[in-house]
Amino acid sequence: MAASAGPEIERLISLLSKLPGLGPRSARRSALALLKKREALLLPLADAMSQAAARVKTCGTCGALDTQDPCAVCSDPARDTSLICVVEEVGALWAMERAGAFRGRYHVLGGLLSALDGVGPDALRIGQLVGRVSGGEVKEVVLALPATVDGQTTAHYLADALAGTGVAVTMLARGVPVGGELDWLDDGTIAQAMRARRPA
Amino acid sequence: MAASAGPEIERLISLLSKLPGLGPRSARRSALALLKKREALLLPLADAMSQAAARVKTCGTCGALDTQDPCAVCSDPARDTSLICVVEEVGALWAMERAGAFRGRYHVLGGLLSALDGVGPDALRIGQLVGRVSGGEVKEVVLALPATVDGQTTAHYLADALAGTGVAVTMLARGVPVGGELDWLDDGTIAQAMRARRPA
Repeated sequence: MAASAGPEIERLISLLSKLPGLGPRSARRSALALLKKREALLLPLADAMSQAAARVKTCGTCGALDTQDPCAVCSDPARDTSLICVVEEVGALWAMERAGAFRGRYHVLGGLLSALDGVGPDALRIGQLVGRVSGGEVKEVVLALPATVDGQTTAHYLADALAGTGVAVTMLARGVPVGGELDWLDDGTIAQAMRARRPA
Repeated sequence: MAASAGPEIERLISLLSKLPGLGPRSARRSALALLKKREALLLPLADAMSQAAARVKTCGTCGALDTQDPCAVCSDPARDTSLICVVEEVGALWAMERAGAFRGRYHVLGGLLSALDGVGPDALRIGQLVGRVSGGEVKEVVLALPATVDGQTTAHYLADALAGTGVAVTMLARGVPVGGELDWLDDGTIAQAMRARRPA
């Protein structure tokens, strides 16, 4: 940091550098950009942060972030209440909504089971999921978890936990992503796409 | 953006994505990280931004950003008042201070002359620089401007503008950067380092 900048600037840079994707250098650039655009960026961003801190809460039903509880998805009567899509984090929920391919409701786990990181079932919102499914209205649970070791471990655990409820448990298809050149794909994806091949 | 997130979250993401180095995707990740660490990050950052907006000002002498005017460098009696280092922006001033290789004072131009972008001499703090130098106390002006076309155009213009004042005008040395492998350096740098070679 610059010894010549005041403590306010140092504090701003140090907090900005804790954002994902910003290191010390880009945090300095961001701080300068903010101080240059005081009216257009710095003050509105400070206000947006205070507003978000004060008003955004976690949905008590699905675990999403919204200014209302239940969240907009959970309280939308047009949503199919017989479908629940299980995601790791709110970011995955947003990605799913941007894709616009799912019209049911969500359940945010809050993480993945991980033996390495010591994350057990009690640290995730698994009990709440089983509770929601046991209500009887839900017909299918779609596991939209990452195709990683932890993601698949969690998917298996959830499938077991939901086995007694009589609900259908499905997961996202694996295969070649849209625009994916075979030449650039990893072997695992190609092998899975081959195993899951279907009539053209 | 996620249609399901409240307007507060949308606004936060949209403002974050205007920071240099953050695109829409990393702005979403940052917004999520902020909302997850409300007490540790979101509220302190909002406060740091309000504080910075309220207290950081531009030094009337050199153009640096600080909470005091004149800034800490300009008001430091231990600094050599016969030396002025001219930089493009405050970020370059901070980089120079981190290097700790200069004990004089600074002059922030606020940009570079650019025919393409239509930046003329009146848009920069060139008049103030000539005014400071004309005081008689300054013996040398070091031009620490980028080794780009605009940087060099500006350096030539400043050397001309300062020619009548009798002050020595110098510029940073060009050559191989510390740790620089010749194999990875561009031809221009190698050529300049060769022309400026010196006894070993």
